[in-house]
Formats: sequence, structure tokens, C-alpha cells
Amino acid sequence: MPRARAQATNYPDQPPILLGAAWYPEQWPSSRWNADLDLMEKAHIHVVRIGEFAWSSMEPKEGIYTFGWLDQAIAMAAQHHIAVVLGTPTAAPPAWLTTKYPQTLRTNDHGVKAQHGNRAQYSFTDPMYRKFAYQIAWEMAKRYGHNPDVVGWQLDNEIANPDFGPTGQAAFHAWLKNRYGTIANLNQQWATAYWSETYDNFDEVPVRDYNENPALLLDWQRFVSDTWKSYLENQIEAIRPNIDPRQFITTNTMGWFDGFNEYEIHSVLDVAAWDDYISTDHYDYLDNGARHDLTRGYKNKNFWVMETEPVFVDWRGTNTPLKKGQVRDMAWQAIGHGADAVEYWQWRSAPNGQEEYHGVLVGADGEPAPVYPEIQKIGQEFDEAGSALEGTTPHSEVAVINDYDSRWAINFQRQAAKFDPVKEMLAFYDPLRTASQAVDVVSVNAALDQYKLVVAPALNVLTQAEATKLEAYVEQGGHLVLGPRSGMKKLNDGLQPEQQPGPMEPFLGARVEQFYALDKDVPLEGPLGVGTAQIWAEPLSVTAKGKDAAAVKVLESYGRSNGWLDGQAAIVTRKMGKGTITYVGAWLTPALMKRFADYELQQAGVHPLLAGVPAGVEVCVRSNAHKYILILINHNTEARRVELHRAMYNLLANKTAVVNAVTLPKYGVAVLEASSAQ
Amino acid sequence: MPRARAQATNYPDQPPILLGAAWYPEQWPSSRWNADLDLMEKAHIHVVRIGEFAWSSMEPKEGIYTFGWLDQAIAMAAQHHIAVVLGTPTAAPPAWLTTKYPQTLRTNDHGVKAQHGNRAQYSFTDPMYRKFAYQIAWEMAKRYGHNPDVVGWQLDNEIANPDFGPTGQAAFHAWLKNRYGTIANLNQQWATAYWSETYDNFDEVPVRDYNENPALLLDWQRFVSDTWKSYLENQIEAIRPNIDPRQFITTNTMGWFDGFNEYEIHSVLDVAAWDDYISTDHYDYLDNGARHDLTRGYKNKNFWVMETEPVFVDWRGTNTPLKKGQVRDMAWQAIGHGADAVEYWQWRSAPNGQEEYHGVLVGADGEPAPVYPEIQKIGQEFDEAGSALEGTTPHSEVAVINDYDSRWAINFQRQAAKFDPVKEMLAFYDPLRTASQAVDVVSVNAALDQYKLVVAPALNVLTQAEATKLEAYVEQGGHLVLGPRSGMKKLNDGLQPEQQPGPMEPFLGARVEQFYALDKDVPLEGPLGVGTAQIWAEPLSVTAKGKDAAAVKVLESYGRSNGWLDGQAAIVTRKMGKGTITYVGAWLTPALMKRFADYELQQAGVHPLLAGVPAGVEVCVRSNAHKYILILINHNTEARRVELHRAMYNLLANKTAVVNAVTLPKYGVAVLEASSAQ
Amino acid sequence: MPRARAQATNYPDQPPILLGAAWYPEQWPSSRWNADLDLMEKAHIHVVRIGEFAWSSMEPKEGIYTFGWLDQAIAMAAQHHIAVVLGTPTAAPPAWLTTKYPQTLRTNDHGVKAQHGNRAQYSFTDPMYRKFAYQIAWEMAKRYGHNPDVVGWQLDNEIANPDFGPTGQAAFHAWLKNRYGTIANLNQQWATAYWSETYDNFDEVPVRDYNENPALLLDWQRFVSDTWKSYLENQIEAIRPNIDPRQFITTNTMGWFDGFNEYEIHSVLDVAAWDDYISTDHYDYLDNGARHDLTRGYKNKNFWVMETEPVFVDWRGTNTPLKKGQVRDMAWQAIGHGADAVEYWQWRSAPNGQEEYHGVLVGADGEPAPVYPEIQKIGQEFDEAGSALEGTTPHSEVAVINDYDSRWAINFQRQAAKFDPVKEMLAFYDPLRTASQAVDVVSVNAALDQYKLVVAPALNVLTQAEATKLEAYVEQGGHLVLGPRSGMKKLNDGLQPEQQPGPMEPFLGARVEQFYALDKDVPLEGPLGVGTAQIWAEPLSVTAKGKDAAAVKVLESYGRSNGWLDGQAAIVTRKMGKGTITYVGAWLTPALMKRFADYELQQAGVHPLLAGVPAGVEVCVRSNAHKYILILINHNTEARRVELHRAMYNLLANKTAVVNAVTLPKYGVAVLEASSAQ
Repeated sequence: MPRARAQATNYPDQPPILLGAAWYPEQWPSSRWNADLDLMEKAHIHVVRIGEFAWSSMEPKEGIYTFGWLDQAIAMAAQHHIAVVLGTPTAAPPAWLTTKYPQTLRTNDHGVKAQHGNRAQYSFTDPMYRKFAYQIAWEMAKRYGHNPDVVGWQLDNEIANPDFGPTGQAAFHAWLKNRYGTIANLNQQWATAYWSETYDNFDEVPVRDYNENPALLLDWQRFVSDTWKSYLENQIEAIRPNIDPRQFITTNTMGWFDGFNEYEIHSVLDVAAWDDYISTDHYDYLDNGARHDLTRGYKNKNFWVMETEPVFVDWRGTNTPLKKGQVRDMAWQAIGHGADAVEYWQWRSAPNGQEEYHGVLVGADGEPAPVYPEIQKIGQEFDEAGSALEGTTPHSEVAVINDYDSRWAINFQRQAAKFDPVKEMLAFYDPLRTASQAVDVVSVNAALDQYKLVVAPALNVLTQAEATKLEAYVEQGGHLVLGPRSGMKKLNDGLQPEQQPGPMEPFLGARVEQFYALDKDVPLEGPLGVGTAQIWAEPLSVTAKGKDAAAVKVLESYGRSNGWLDGQAAIVTRKMGKGTITYVGAWLTPALMKRFADYELQQAGVHPLLAGVPAGVEVCVRSNAHKYILILINHNTEARRVELHRAMYNLLANKTAVVNAVTLPKYGVAVLEASSAQ
Repeated sequence: MPRARAQATNYPDQPPILLGAAWYPEQWPSSRWNADLDLMEKAHIHVVRIGEFAWSSMEPKEGIYTFGWLDQAIAMAAQHHIAVVLGTPTAAPPAWLTTKYPQTLRTNDHGVKAQHGNRAQYSFTDPMYRKFAYQIAWEMAKRYGHNPDVVGWQLDNEIANPDFGPTGQAAFHAWLKNRYGTIANLNQQWATAYWSETYDNFDEVPVRDYNENPALLLDWQRFVSDTWKSYLENQIEAIRPNIDPRQFITTNTMGWFDGFNEYEIHSVLDVAAWDDYISTDHYDYLDNGARHDLTRGYKNKNFWVMETEPVFVDWRGTNTPLKKGQVRDMAWQAIGHGADAVEYWQWRSAPNGQEEYHGVLVGADGEPAPVYPEIQKIGQEFDEAGSALEGTTPHSEVAVINDYDSRWAINFQRQAAKFDPVKEMLAFYDPLRTASQAVDVVSVNAALDQYKLVVAPALNVLTQAEATKLEAYVEQGGHLVLGPRSGMKKLNDGLQPEQQPGPMEPFLGARVEQFYALDKDVPLEGPLGVGTAQIWAEPLSVTAKGKDAAAVKVLESYGRSNGWLDGQAAIVTRKMGKGTITYVGAWLTPALMKRFADYELQQAGVHPLLAGVPAGVEVCVRSNAHKYILILINHNTEARRVELHRAMYNLLANKTAVVNAVTLPKYGVAVLEASSAQ
Repeated sequence: MPRARAQATNYPDQPPILLGAAWYPEQWPSSRWNADLDLMEKAHIHVVRIGEFAWSSMEPKEGIYTFGWLDQAIAMAAQHHIAVVLGTPTAAPPAWLTTKYPQTLRTNDHGVKAQHGNRAQYSFTDPMYRKFAYQIAWEMAKRYGHNPDVVGWQLDNEIANPDFGPTGQAAFHAWLKNRYGTIANLNQQWATAYWSETYDNFDEVPVRDYNENPALLLDWQRFVSDTWKSYLENQIEAIRPNIDPRQFITTNTMGWFDGFNEYEIHSVLDVAAWDDYISTDHYDYLDNGARHDLTRGYKNKNFWVMETEPVFVDWRGTNTPLKKGQVRDMAWQAIGHGADAVEYWQWRSAPNGQEEYHGVLVGADGEPAPVYPEIQKIGQEFDEAGSALEGTTPHSEVAVINDYDSRWAINFQRQAAKFDPVKEMLAFYDPLRTASQAVDVVSVNAALDQYKLVVAPALNVLTQAEATKLEAYVEQGGHLVLGPRSGMKKLNDGLQPEQQPGPMEPFLGARVEQFYALDKDVPLEGPLGVGTAQIWAEPLSVTAKGKDAAAVKVLESYGRSNGWLDGQAAIVTRKMGKGTITYVGAWLTPALMKRFADYELQQAGVHPLLAGVPAGVEVCVRSNAHKYILILINHNTEARRVELHRAMYNLLANKTAVVNAVTLPKYGVAVLEASSAQ
């Protein structure tokens, strides 16, 4: 139950776990607002996001600001005990702006200029656009930076699309000049003797995100990341001096989307937030959990789900709904993976416009939609379990490395069309998560010492500094796994002067002889049993000499296939210092990957948080020095019983009764707190 | 047999049912013409279309007209007892025109200007183009408006492509200004507060037919309809004052094509005409019959098939031929559905050019092609049965509503990719046509009182006026069926302020709780038996109160699926006044749809025209106060016997013998006239 | 074993069969070159291609030439007994060139200008580009035209892409004016009365390679051929006067690629060369052999494989490797079909750039890749068998006609999507090659008298002159087969004024009544047994009269299908003079095609070179007046024994022992020389 709050309540007074929704008061007469806020309050909604896309309503003419309606909306929400996250409206500039200053419009990679009427039509490099974005953010911050009912800021919306027009080109050339100093240096790094690509000056470099030297493509992606970072900084500079320190600044990101380096972007933000859309009825809870873990890894702390779907979306071909009960299942999964807020998009459809068919909490007639009671239940439960969850976060002994340079480099040159680096990462993640019940997804630059096991699924781009760091991790007792395609490329996307894993070859004591794309499975056999490789296969040979050679163990070898692989090693492992390094040269299919994951966890001494849990029941733990909260989610369509191995309190049921087991119905959730006795 | 005609024969002297062909005399030396016309006459061809695409031959230089060849072609045709429909040549402007006045070239929705060398390269809004089109039409009309051998006019050819260039943009902005008066009104109607789309003036509105606010998209389609109408009116103004009243004016349309509102276009035309192409060997006679019914509905009277295929076409990937006998089958189907003329495209291929591979009646060597004898037989039969058919037309007790606003609105936002509104219309049409043997396809604005049963398959856009009209229809004894997605949108494509069916919710006494896109079938059960829903499912709940609530009957409910649908009503029906209203929330698969159609026909008291006909035998009746002609077509590949239940004359056999049954061979046709005794 | 050669060795001193590789010394420090050349020499590599794509390294600034590195690379190669083919670098102009002279950049068929950073970005018509290309070629030729270690010249690389920009347009218009003289003549030839396409002058003709009159499309392709020819001549004029006559000039072509007429191009080249890529692990040896035969036919003499893959490529979606042993299998197939050199692309990957993933002989670390030993073995074998193969070439009694006009005409208007003229050619080629073991693929303009059997698979465009030539061939004893779609079109792509086979109809004494596209198989029956037609079917009728009619024999007729084909003749044959003419109206599926091929070979008196060979074992013979070399390749995955029917020496084994049979392991090869006793 929400604690009573005065009108001047600020963020720390909010319940620790927040249910929320995206609300667009500017689309409705203010006479309707109270009815909507009443329904929100009844659903235990404690936060709304407002302002996103409302630029025309805030600044209807250049330099003329009309914030009255927003003042009123925030105040009315506060009266319903609902706080506000303010969105800067820069994802959708007003028509007057782009009409008067057409240079602010974005040009796509085929030279076509964006038009008004949709969104994200602006150029992320244009100085005039940045000036206007700064100004509207500054005006908003001045007005609401000390408003007790405003708890934070979302910058723009789902930033994504770079600009290939004149200002984008000039910015890229300046960025290259800054990075390389001289064109001769760039030519050398990019090996432009190839295809006579040699440049005489930076302005000759083409600006295109395909069909180019991969060195150029990789630098383009880095430039885009840096530019989005400065794009956000421009607004942060307008906002930060004008707001209370308690107000956070974030932006809403998009899971696996790889348009920029999330770690770079988040270096200037306070908290991570993402938009969690399944978009069909095919809810893959492991993939969705991995996206939560990914987002948590941007700042290595709890995060917000800024948008998620009330049953279905409207932007896919066929937008099938989640099943009844899965909205709650997903909400608790978010919390289990470290979310502190879950906000639904959207409260109610606009009276017209591109997204009339998107799922909502309130129907066309202003009455609760069928999903409303399920969301209301979530809100009630968040309130009930909130104080127990306060200050807790997930903790993992296993980390999977997410490396944008490597993902980009592989995507530029897939070689095997099905080698999607995210799917390859999930091939490792899924069995590790299922077995260990806690996995962090982190940058290769993260502190790794806290982990017993670190898996780099396809660390294609590997610098000497990273290699040194990873070797030190192993020496000090870490267990490191490198997946296929690791260590092939230098920072500039050029080939390493050694065979894979490049600078780590001596440390591994083995090398990849050659890579092979597969379109048919290849058999594997060895100490981990028989299995199959798919999509990719690298035969390994031992390069260590003498006694060292004997220390390199072959875990799996290829069976008979195309002759090149027959009998060659597919997985090798070596003890080094206090730890181990293992190289997996093949994309393993699930049965063998599961055995491999179990083997590595066992080597690393990682145990499940709760052993003996039935398949399809997800286990999440949030804890701190004083608390231990267990969240169980039954993703199955039949009930499952879970033994707890310790006495706990069931926070969503009779809170005072100690239980040793729970039975979860279809899509059922239990939130349990360790009894103080333990 | 064609009646003898003097050289000065005019249209009323023509046989009532006309066989025809598209003839391009300008492509051949005049020395060849007599040979072609001899072959036409032998095939009982009584009409040719000439002039279409011949602008370069009529006006080889600006302002220089050369009609001598056309005079001669018409005269020679007349000598072979063949009349002429003249096509205005505006679908293919001469090279000199677009070279000198490049503004007359069309710009497509990606900003690319059309080039010479293909067709339809003109801008439908350009004033200069309209000036030239007016002038050539005026010159033709002056010359041939009183020519006794010219029976009618076809304007342009298969009008379709709008112009997105500067004149198109300006015209759209003017159209919007005319519709909305003020930009504030447009902003309000379109709900442009959404995504900050708010416009400051009409010129800011983007001109694009995708990725925009559906309100804009719907108005764009209406603008396109209005513009095509004025494009045709421009030529009509040039022609009408110069021609005999007996000469009709039409244009050749394209079945389900939805580039504009056919009802609007036909308000300025005398007769409807269409181009009936199957384009493969997959002749779906129900779909083809529906397209005839659609065309008949444009003017609610008999129509022309202006083009149809002699066995195969050339514009699909693989252009398989109709089977031997199906050309005749199709010709008689056209007559059965109300066509008074069937013209084949084309007589003979051009010596070169884009359509060398299209089916023809005469081969490359000028001799009859294999299909010639079959078409000759059709001609003979048209002549034999013509006088009996004169003055007759089909009559239906069932109407299916074809609503362009709704089709457009759904196509802009399919939500379920497979929700093709035409396919959904056919899901209702097919069993209704099979069971009742006569269905009209009409506008929602048509007079409905003549129908016992009216089905609106997906009346997505529904105004209050239309709702009122439909309710009155029911009150007065009509039986009305609304299909899924009905009553969701307002005239401006915005959401109705009530749940579906919007303004008709109180009258129905039930509402749609939510819509769901499906990618798997969902079971249904109820008084109509078990079945399945596909693609779309809306659960309904009763909103009527008290005694009224009891009057709302559930005909089918959803079985177990995603939780949201389980046990909810899928079809509800209610007696109101002297009639009934029924709402079908799901796209029913054929077996259940057949039972539903039978149920509704029975409720409405609609009986088949001829009961007990074997499956695959199509029944058509053309009649008037004095005549009753039965056309039977066996679409099966084996013979079928049909009992007639009355004594009739077989017009294609021994005309004087009375028969009580006929046996139709594979693809066989019988045309029977009620004996005068009855 | 390579013969010892002085540093001044020139081409005639080279071994007769050459193993080679593409080497890009400019991508590596010269300090590395010796190590690479050592590894090449160890692999028995005797030739490298250098210079292709090295324009920036040869002319780093306009007019400044730096050939020192190239001098050194050639000299160092010579020290390793490796000769050089020099590539002119015009496929990749330097950035300074296209920056300063942007008119040299190519425009594609959608109006988009190419950019630097990829390759083939130049306009093939631009005079300024031709000036630069001439100059660099002239500078190279002056410097290396008498260098004893340079054996030949490759012009540009894989020429392919025309220019649709202003210079391309002007050139096309000039070409048309030259061909047609007056626009009236063009209008008449193209039948532009169709769709009012009539042109007033040549500049109005659109420049586009789709959606146009097929007459225009065909002329466009001829223009492109002529322009590529003059593009090559421009460089030849710069080179020829400056080089020794022993240095040959070629360009590397691309198998079935139909961007221009290869026979036209090769009229100005000394030798044919092609790039043989399988690009997956799906090695179809019949198709690959046909591509060798095609290339041999460009000059009707032995040729070079200028590039081929060391196991895999990198430009397909999934680049699976050839199986171990197949690289050697392919190398010997090339020799068997008349190649005198086989060069691998590429020696080693560039340190960066678009093709980092392509197969190589040397890995990222500079050490031999897994394929190196296999290629080394090929080199050893080439050396061992070389002197025996010297001066030999394949000889065939069967020719298949490859006609670009016909392939283009069919591809512009497929009518049946699957009617790929190359696949249709292979439908004839495959069984003919398997049965006869030697097939030439030649132009319709080649000397045909040497052949017992000539097959024109789909001679769609057929002039009177060609018809006369083919008839004379038959009269003099030749056996001629025309495939479906033959004789339909005139030189201008217009329809022949007779039914197919057009001008040859009287000679055949039969005509095609109509063509039909198929999407389902149609049964066939007749003296050759039962079978099926797919994709295309033409019913034939006899037009010869009296006694002549009886001479036209029906070999196969259509069974029951769509009515149009039922019972009609599908294949007819007639004795004329000393030979026979046969028309095949249907695309036959393989089983029947095999019987048809056997029938024709038997009629023509063609016998296999070596009877009784197991399936999957390819037989190739190279011979001259004094030599007879048999090459056997087992494409099966199990061993096969082959009886030789004569005593031979096994050149790859104990050369002095006479054998009467050989057993070939999986992918095994035997090269056998007839013993002098025979």
C-alpha cells in the first residue's frame, strides 16, 4: 500500500518499487485528467512519464513557452500521489522549427532527408538543433528542477538514427582527424593500400554505414556513439545546473539495439532505463532476462523499465498479445533482475495518430481495458513487497561480456549469415543463467575480479591491454572462456598478426588454424560427450611446447565432416596461475552447451542459488548485507512446487507465516524473504 | 447472329451482348487492317476499342492533328459490322509533350520523376497536362462525337498513380484547406498533439502515403479520389458538349484496386467498365464473380468488361494459361453477373514493345491463335442468346458493403499482417453467394431497403449518419451483420469515443472489450457448432441492461486460448424493431462461416434461386419484368447434371425444345429462358 | 619440377601449366616479400598477378609515378622463378582522381553516384577517366613492356557496371544515332507506335535497363558491350605499342555473367581468362565444367583461370568451404577443360579491408594455411605433367550455342519466372557432356562445320543470316537441335512475322502454335519414352505438305494437362539434306533429357571418349596430333575403378609403368598419357 505523501513529496518518499505509465495529458482536455489519475491511483501507479513528444505544446512558436498545462498536470498527479519523470521532447521537433531551419532535419544513409509527421527526424550533429534542444531542456529544468513532484528526467526518446547529411559528414571527418592526427596514420591503420582506398585528406573519407572498409565502419560506429554522448551532454548541461541533485537523468534505451556503445552513453547518465517490448506472444524469458541483465550492466546497478507493453504492441506485422498472466510474470521478472520501476506504455491511446492500435490500460471509452486488473494486481504487490526489496540488488558470480566493437565487427562481416553475435551470446548465457541463477552482462572494461567465471562469447576485437587484463584475471584465479571468433581483430578492425586468439595465443597455448562457416551441423565428441557444432567451426592446434603442451587439454574434437575439421580440437582448456582459460572454437548446439556450462560452473565453484528447482521456474535473488529476497516465477503453463531449503516469509501472501515450500500456479510468482532466524 | 447493319449503324442497332477486342491499328500498315477485320467478323466480334495509347499517332507534333488513319480504321471496322469505343490517349503522352513541359511528369512517393518509354508517366494534378488532355479529347470528340459507328468513350486507361511532386503537394494542401478551413481545426481532427505533429499552416503537411498519421493518410486517399474525379471531369467537359447523347463515357477500372473511391469516380461516368484479369491458371470463380458484382455496384446497373485475357497475360512472374474452355466459362460468368460486353485484350501483339508475350487472338504470323475458335464460339453464343438477354440484369436480396474508407483505414494499420480487408470481405461473400446465388456489392451509401440481408464485413470507419441509417434499416425489418473491426474509427480515422462498434454500441447492446491479432487459430463453440477463428478475435460483452440484456444472444463463444478470449462471446445477435443486428467479432474459417451464412440467410428469409445445384456449378439469373434467364456454369472438371424445377428453353442448343434438366460438361455453360408457359 | 630459369627468363621458358596466386606486395612492407616468395616457390607457384588495385601506390598524386616498389617486387619474384602478370589498376581509381574529377564517377540505374571506398566506381564512358586509364596503362607498359619477367597483362578487373549518368546517356544516344541513322528508322524498328513511345529525336530515348521496350533494352546491352570493348581498346592502344609480342593481354571475366557479349569483348584480347568461384561447398562439377567450356569458347583456344578460391570466399551470406581434396579436384578439372594456368585468390589477406575473411594460402600470422599443402601438391603435379600437356587442348564433336542476344531477350521478358536461360542451357549441356565427354560452348557465329551435333538451347533472337547458316550446316550433314523459345524474335527484339522458329519454320516443316508458361509439370510420351515438361511448353504442328509432312517425325507428345497441350507434339525432327533438324518445344526434366541427348548423339554418331566410366567420374581429354592425355577426376566421395581400354602412363604416379586401369580415391585424379606403342 502506498505511503501517504504530502503534495511536496519528493522521490525518496516514493515507494521503493514503482509501478508507472506513460501519460500524455496534452492529448486530452484537462477536464479528463482527474478521471485518468483516479484510475491510475486505483491501479497503485506511483509515477508517470510526461512531456516526451510535447514540444509543440510547450513551445508552440519559437521562443514562446506555454508550461501552464504541464504545471497543472504535475500538480494534479501529485494530488493522486503520483510523481513525474519529465521527458525532454527533442525526439519530435515542432513543425515550425524544421520548416524554418531545414538543416536540422536528418539525412539517411541513402541521402533522403527526413520529413515532419513522424519522429526522430532531427540531425544529431546539427548545431542549430542542439541549440534548440538545449534551450527547451533549460526552460524545463529552470521550471521543474526544484519541483518536489518531479523525480527525474528522460532525455529524448529511444535515440537511434545518425545523420549522413552535410553536418554529419563534417563531424565524422573532424572526429577522424582528432583520432588519427594525420591522414597517413589513418591510411596505415585502415590498410588503405587495399583496393587503392588511400586518402589524401580526411574530407575524402566516405560517410556510409555499409560496403566500406570495416575499419571505416567500426570508426563510424564509434563516432556515432561519441556523438550521441555529446548530444545527451548538451541537454545535461542545460538541465544539471538547474535541478535538485535528487532528480536523476536517464534516457530510454532498447535492449540489444547496437546503434551505439551503451557503456559510453551511460558514462554521462545517472541511471539506466530501457523499453522492454516482446512485441508478440512469444515471450522468451531467458532472452528477456538477459536484456534486463544487459541494462543493469550499463551502470552496474539497479535500473528502470521505462516502457513495457500492456499485452501487445502495434509496430510489428502481426501484433499478437501476451497471454493472460504474462504481464505480471514479466513485471516480476524485471524486479527480479534489478528493476526498481516498471512503467507501461501507454496509459491510453491518443485520439488519432500512428499508434492507435497499441496496447493500453484504458480503452477508447476511457474505461479500464481487460489488462487493467492484472496491472492493478502488480501495483498492489509492488506496494506489499516494496519495503522488503528496498536497497537490494542482484549479485552474480558469473559474467558474460558484451562487447560492442566485437558485435559490430562481426556484423559487418558475418561470413556465416546466421552468426548473429547476440544469439551466440545467448547460446552461452541461457544455460549459465539456468544453472547459476545469476549472471551479469558487462563490458570487457568492467571490474572482473568479483566473478568466478567470465565468458566472452565472441571477443572478436581484442586489444593487447584487454588481453593483459584477462590474463591477469586468470592468473589470480578467474575462469575465463573465450568463444569462437575471439581475438581475430585489432582495435582498428584489422587482422591480428597472429592466428586467433591473437595476443592471447601464447597464454592459451593453442591457436585457431582456420575458421569455417557452416550450413550443416558437424559432430563433436570428447570428455563432455557427443554433440554438434553449427554455424561456425574453428579447429585448434596446440602451440605450447613440451610440458606446457601437455597442460593444454582437449575437451571436444570434431568428428568427420568436410575433411578440414575431422579429428581436430574444438574446445581446449588450460590451467594458468590459479585459474583456467578455455577456448571454444565452435558454436555449440544447446545440449552440449549445457554440459559445457555445467562443466565450467563446476570448475569455477559456482553453485545455484536454489538447487532442485523445476524446469521453467525462474529464480532471482535480490539481496544486501541484511536482506535476502527470493523471487520465483513459474513460466510454465502448469503449476510447479518449489522446495525452499530454508524458512521464508511469503511477501505476497500471509506475510507472517514461515514457509518451506511454495506451489506456483501457471505464470505464478512468489516473493519470499529470508526469515530473521537465518 | 449479328443483325445486318448499314454503314451508318449506331449503338442501339448493335446486338445487346457484345463480343469485342482491343485493336491498335496504328501499330500495323493499313494494308493489314482488312485481314484483321475479316478475322474479327468471323469471330462475331461487334466492337473494338481504338485510340488508347495512340496520342503520338493523333498529334505527332504539338497542335498538329492527324486523324486520317483513325477515320479510315473506324470506317473499315464499320464495313465489317464492328462498332468502336474510342479511348482518349492520355495514359501515354507523346515524347514531345513531356520533353517540352517536364512539369507534366509524375513524381512518385520516393521523389523519383517518371520517364518516357513506359506509360502513366503524367501528373494527374498538373494544369498544363490537363490543358493538353482537354485539347486532345476535344479534338477527338469534335471529330467523332456524331460518328454513327462510335458507340462510346473510354477515358485514359487504368488510372492509378497519384503525383507526389510540387503540383500534387500544392493541390493536396489546397484540398486540406478547403476541407478543414483552419489549421487549428485540422490539428484537432488529426490529434496532432501526438508526436508533436502540430502544424502551423497547411503547407507544412507532408505529402506521403506511408509512415504518417492515419488521419493524414485517409485524407490523402480522399484527395486522390477527388483529384481523379476532376481529372476525368476535365476530359468529360471536353467531350460531352461535342457528342451524341447515345455515346456513353466510361473508364476501365481494376477490380479490387483501392487507389481511389470507385463510387466517387463513377458519379461522373455513364457506365462502369473493368479489366478482368486472372493472370494465372488459378481461376477462383467466386472471387472473380465478386469483382463483377463490385463493378456492377459502382452504378448499380449492367457494366462492360473492357479488357479480359485470351488465355494468359505477361505481367506476372509466371503467366500460366487458363485451361481450355475456361475463357468461355469466364465470358459467360461476366454476362451472368451483369456484363453487356466482353472485350479481349488484345487482338494481336504489337510488333515490338513491353507486351510481346501477352495472350492474343491472332498470332505473330497473323493467323488465328489456338484460343480463337473458343472465342469465336463465345461470339456465336452471344449472338444466339443476345436478344433474350436484352434488358435483363441480376437482382439480389443480399448485399455486402464495400467501404473504401474502412479498407484504407485497415490497410494503413493492419495490426495483423494477414488482415486483408478484401479477403475478409470474401470470407463473408463466398458462402453467401454460393447459398443465395445472388449478391450485390455496394457502397454503404447505397439504398439498402431492397435487401433482406446486409453484411458489412469490416466497417472500420463508421459515422453517426451511417450508424443511424443502418439502425433504421434494421428497425424496418432488415437483417444487418457487422464483421470484426467495425465501428472503431471516426470519419477522420480517429478512435471512436466508445468501444466498438462505436455509435452502434447501444443499438447492438454489446461492446468489444478489446481486439486481438492472432497468428494461431482459436477454437469457437456455440449454437452454430464448433469452428475456429483466425487472424483476428474480439471478445464481446453485453452492455444492454435488464430485459434488454437477455435479448442479446450469443451465437458463438471462444474456447480456451490465450486467457483473454477464453469463454468470451465471439458473435452476438439481437432483434431490434422488425429486424436483427449481429456482430461477428472474429474472422471465421470457412466451415463455420458457411453455417453462419446459412443461419443469416434463413433468418432473413433468403432462398436460393435454384435449389439443389451440385457444388461448383454457378447459378446466375438475369431478369426483368418479362424475362427470366438462367445461366449455369459448371466450373468442375467433370460433367454435372442440374435439375431445373421448371420447363425452360436452352438458348445455346435447340432453342425450341423445352427442357427440365441439363447436363453440363467440364467447364460447360447453359443459358436457359423460362418458357412462356410459366 | 620447374625448369631452372635465368633472371631474364621470359614466358616461353615458363612451365607449360602454371600454378599461380594473386599477390598484393603494396599491402606489406618489402621486408616481408622474401618470406612470401619463399613460400610460393615451395608451393611450385610460377606466376603471380600484381598491380591490380594498386593505382594509389603507382600514382600517389596526379602525374607523379612511383614504380620503384613494383620494380623490386617483380625482380624479387623472378629470383624465386616466378613470373608476373601485371594488372592495370583501373578498377579502383585513387581518391585524388575522383575528388578532383567527379565526372569520372559512375551513376547507377537509380541515379545514385558511386563513392570512393569500394571499387568499380568509375564511369566507363567518361573521356576524362579514359584519359587517366590510358596514361597509367601507358606508363606501366613503357616500364614493363620489355621486362622479361612480365608475361602478360590483365586489363582492369571483372568489368561489369555501366554508367547511367550524363556521359553514359550521351554515349548511348550517339550509339543509337550511329546504328539507326534516323529517328524514324528507330521508331519503326522498335515499333514505338506502341504505348505512344514514338521519339522525335535520339536525345529523348530514356536510359534505363528495366521497364522499357525490349528493343531499347537489347540495344542498351549491345551499347554496353561495345562500350566495354572500346574501354579495353583504350588501354590496349596504350599498352600494345610498348610491349613485346610475347606478352599477352587479357581481362578476367566471370562465367555466366551476362553484362556484355563476351565474344565481342574477346575480339580485342589475346587470350581468355576467368575467375572461377563456387562460393559455397556445393560444387556442381558439370556447371563448373560448362563455365570452363564457355570461357574456352571466347577465343576457341586454351585459357587461364585468373582467380579461383582457396577453399572459401567471403562475399556470400554463408561462405562454406570446399571439402578437403576438392581444391585439387577443381584445379585438374580446369586443366582438363583447357586451362593452362590456375591462380588462387589470394595469397594472403590484406591487413584490413573488405575481404579479410576470404580464403588464403597463408594465414594472418604469415604461416601456411591448412589448404597450403593441397595447393602445393597441385603445383607439384602441374610440374610433373606439364610437359606432356604442353600444346594440347580439348576437342569436341558437340557444340552448345551460347547466344547473348537470346539470353538478354529472354531475361527481359521471362514470362515464366524460372526460365533462366543458363539453367535451360545446362539442361541440355549436362547429359550431353556426361555422355560425350567433350562439349564446346560457342557463339552462333563460330565455325560449326567441325561439329557432328549442334544444340541451340533457346535461340530466341534469330536473324535470317543465322538461319541460313544453320540450314546449310544441316544440309551438309550436321545435326541441329533447337530448344524452346527459338526463332521468336528478330534482331531488334521484335516478333518474327512467322510463328516460331520464325525464318526456319519452312526448313523444319513445323511451327509452334503457342507458347505456355508452366508452374506444374506436364506429362510427355512418345518414342523416347515417358517423361515430363517443366517451366515451358510449346505445342508444335506440322506445316510441311504432302510427302514432306510425313518426313516430320514426332519424337514426343504432351499428355493430358491444360487442354491446350493435350496430345500435341512436343519434339519434332526432320531429315534435311545429309543431316537432321530437331525442335524441342518443352523444357525437359533430366530423365527424359538424358534419353533425348543419347538419341541425338547416336543419330550424330558421337561416341564417348572413354566408355564404361562409373557415374561421377569426369573424363577429359587434351590432345594434339602427337599426344593424347586423359584426365580422370573422381567427384564421388568413395573410390572408383576405371578401365582404360588401352595402355597408358600414369603421369602423377610411376611415370614409366604402363597401366590398363586406375583406381581413383575420393576426389582422386589421374593424368594418363597414351603409351607410344599406340
